Amino acid sequence: MTSTKDAVTARGEWVRQANRFTQRVAAEAGRYRLIVSLACPWAHRAVIVRRLLGLEDAISLGVVDPIRDERGWRFTLDPDGRDPVTGIEFLSEAYLATDPDFAGRFTVPALIDTTSGLVATNDFPQISLDLSTEWTRFHRAGAPQLYPEALRAEIDEVNDGVHRDVNQGVYQCGFARSQVAYEEAFDRLFTRLDLLSERLSDRRYLVGDTITEADVRLFTTLVRFDAVYHGHFKCNRNKLTELPVLWAYARDLFQTPGFGDTVDFDHIKRHYYVTHPDINPNGIVPKGPDLSGWHSEHGRAALGGRPFGDGTPPPNVTG
Amino acid sequence: MTSTKDAVTARGEWVRQANRFTQRVAAEAGRYRLIVSLACPWAHRAVIVRRLLGLEDAISLGVVDPIRDERGWRFTLDPDGRDPVTGIEFLSEAYLATDPDFAGRFTVPALIDTTSGLVATNDFPQISLDLSTEWTRFHRAGAPQLYPEALRAEIDEVNDGVHRDVNQGVYQCGFARSQVAYEEAFDRLFTRLDLLSERLSDRRYLVGDTITEADVRLFTTLVRFDAVYHGHFKCNRNKLTELPVLWAYARDLFQTPGFGDTVDFDHIKRHYYVTHPDINPNGIVPKGPDLSGWHSEHGRAALGGRPFGDGTPPPNVTG
Repeated sequence: MTSTKDAVTARGEWVRQANRFTQRVAAEAGRYRLIVSLACPWAHRAVIVRRLLGLEDAISLGVVDPIRDERGWRFTLDPDGRDPVTGIEFLSEAYLATDPDFAGRFTVPALIDTTSGLVATNDFPQISLDLSTEWTRFHRAGAPQLYPEALRAEIDEVNDGVHRDVNQGVYQCGFARSQVAYEEAFDRLFTRLDLLSERLSDRRYLVGDTITEADVRLFTTLVRFDAVYHGHFKCNRNKLTELPVLWAYARDLFQTPGFGDTVDFDHIKRHYYVTHPDINPNGIVPKGPDLSGWHSEHGRAALGGRPFGDGTPPPNVTG
Repeated sequence: MTSTKDAVTARGEWVRQANRFTQRVAAEAGRYRLIVSLACPWAHRAVIVRRLLGLEDAISLGVVDPIRDERGWRFTLDPDGRDPVTGIEFLSEAYLATDPDFAGRFTVPALIDTTSGLVATNDFPQISLDLSTEWTRFHRAGAPQLYPEALRAEIDEVNDGVHRDVNQGVYQCGFARSQVAYEEAFDRLFTRLDLLSERLSDRRYLVGDTITEADVRLFTTLVRFDAVYHGHFKCNRNKLTELPVLWAYARDLFQTPGFGDTVDFDHIKRHYYVTHPDINPNGIVPKGPDLSGWHSEHGRAALGGRPFGDGTPPPNVTG
C-alpha cells in the first residue's frame, strides 16, 4: 500500500505517505540547500552523512523550528522567520511551488534547488546514499566510505530490516490505531532489536569493520529511543539503556565525531511531544530521561574495528 | 485549596477532590464491604492492610472493573454485572443514595454499610489506619503492628512527604495542565525519591525495623511506577529499575506475603491507559515494560529487620 498521504489500514496500521519527489540530483557545489529538522530521524541521516563526508561547503543547511503548526515546518529560528537563502517562511511554499496539487505532509529532509526554489528531492532513503556515491568529488580528504560497493548488498539487507522494524517500526507503534496493530509493531521492533543486539555482540559495527550507512540509519532511531519513542510511542519493553549491547553500540557512535555532535535532544523532545496532539493532547514535554549516560565509557573499542577505515574523523564542530 | 470536585489552579496544578464521607466506622464483623479497584493505589493500601491483618472474614471485598465508563466504576466483573452483596451495578449508586447532591468523582476505596447500602466512608487515608487501630479484635493471630503507637509520629512524618510528593506527586505530574506545574511536581517527586533512597540505603524498612503503614503507602506507588507512571504520567527521570535502593526495597516488599500477591498489573495498566482519554486518547495499552524483574533476588535481608516483628506472615493466598 503506497499513497501520497499518510493512511490507516482497516486493521489500524499506520502507513507513511510515499515520497513525492524522487528524481535524482546531479552533484553541483553551492546549488542545493538541505532543509532539515534536527528532530527528524529521516533528516538526521543526511545531517550525519553530510558532516562525515565534509559536504558542508557544497550543500548548505537550513534548520526548521522543531514545532510544526498547522501549516507545517517553519523557519521561525531564522531572522524575520525566513530561510535566509530561499526566503521562504514555510517549507510548504517550496512544495507547493513544485507541485500545486501536493496534498500530503510537507516532509524533511528536502533538497531545495536554490536556482529555482523548487524541491529537487524529498526521497530520504536516496538522499544519504547519493551524498556518498554521487557527490564524491566534493568529499573532504579522509572522508569515510559509508556505502562501499563491496558491502552494498549486505548494507542493503541490514537496512531493510532496520527500516521496516526499527526506523519505521517505532512510528507504527506510536501511530497505531488499534491494539493489535500496536502489539504487532511492538513485537517486530523488539524482535529486531534483539537480533541486532546479537549481531553487534562481537562486532563493533553492523557491516564490515567500519562505520557505514547502516550504522547511521540505526543510530538515528536509537538516539531518540529513550527520549521519545519509549514513552511517547509506547516502545517500552525496555529502555535502550536496558539493552547492554545496543546501548554500548549507540554510545560508541554518539561519541564519534559526526554522530553525537549532530544530536539536539531539545529539538527532538519538543518536536514529538508538542506536535502530536493526537497522542499527547496536553503538549507537556517530559523533563526526563536522564541523558548523562550518553557520555559514559562504552568499552566497544575492545571489539576492534576502524571507525573511519582508511579515512579520518571529521574535524571538530566549531562556532 | 480543597474542593468537592477535582480542580485545576490558575498555574495549571491539578488538585484532587476532598473525600466527601469522612465519618469513622465502628468495627463490626460482617457489616462492611470494602469496594476497591485493583488498579487504584489508594484502594490498594486497604487491600494490603486487610490481608496483612487477616481481616478477610470481617470485611468482605468487592472488586470493580478496571475500566471506568462515563458512569464511573462498574461491577461488570461480577455475575449479571452486579455486586453480589449490595446488588448495585455502579459504585455511583451507593454514593448518590448517600448524598443525592454528590457531584464529584465516585472514588475507591469505599466502605459500604451493607445494612443500608450507603457509603460509610471513602476517606482513604483513615481507612487503612482504622483497620490497624480500630479493628484489632478481629485481627488474625500473628497480625503485625502496622501503626504502633511508639512510632506513629515518625510514620506520620514519613507518610506526609510520601503522600505529597510521591503518592499524589505522580498524579500531579500526569494531570498537570501547564509545563511549569508538571516540572515542579516532577522535581518534587524525584527529590523525594532520592531522599527515600538515602533513607533506605542502610535500613530495610522506612520506620523501625518492621513493615509499617509507611511501607504500604510507598509500595503502592512504586509498584505502579514503571508500568504506568513512568510513561503515562511522564515521571521519567528514571525508571524504578534504575534506582537501585528503591528497586530492591520494592522487590523485597513485593516478595513479602500481602504485597505482591495483591498486585494485578493487568488491571493497573488497563485502568490508567484506557480511562484517561485526556492524556492517552487512543486508549492503547503499552505491552511493556518487562516485569519479570519483580521476582528477582533483592538482597535486602542482609540489612536485618524483622518484616512482621513479633508476628507472622499471612498464610498463602488460596483458591
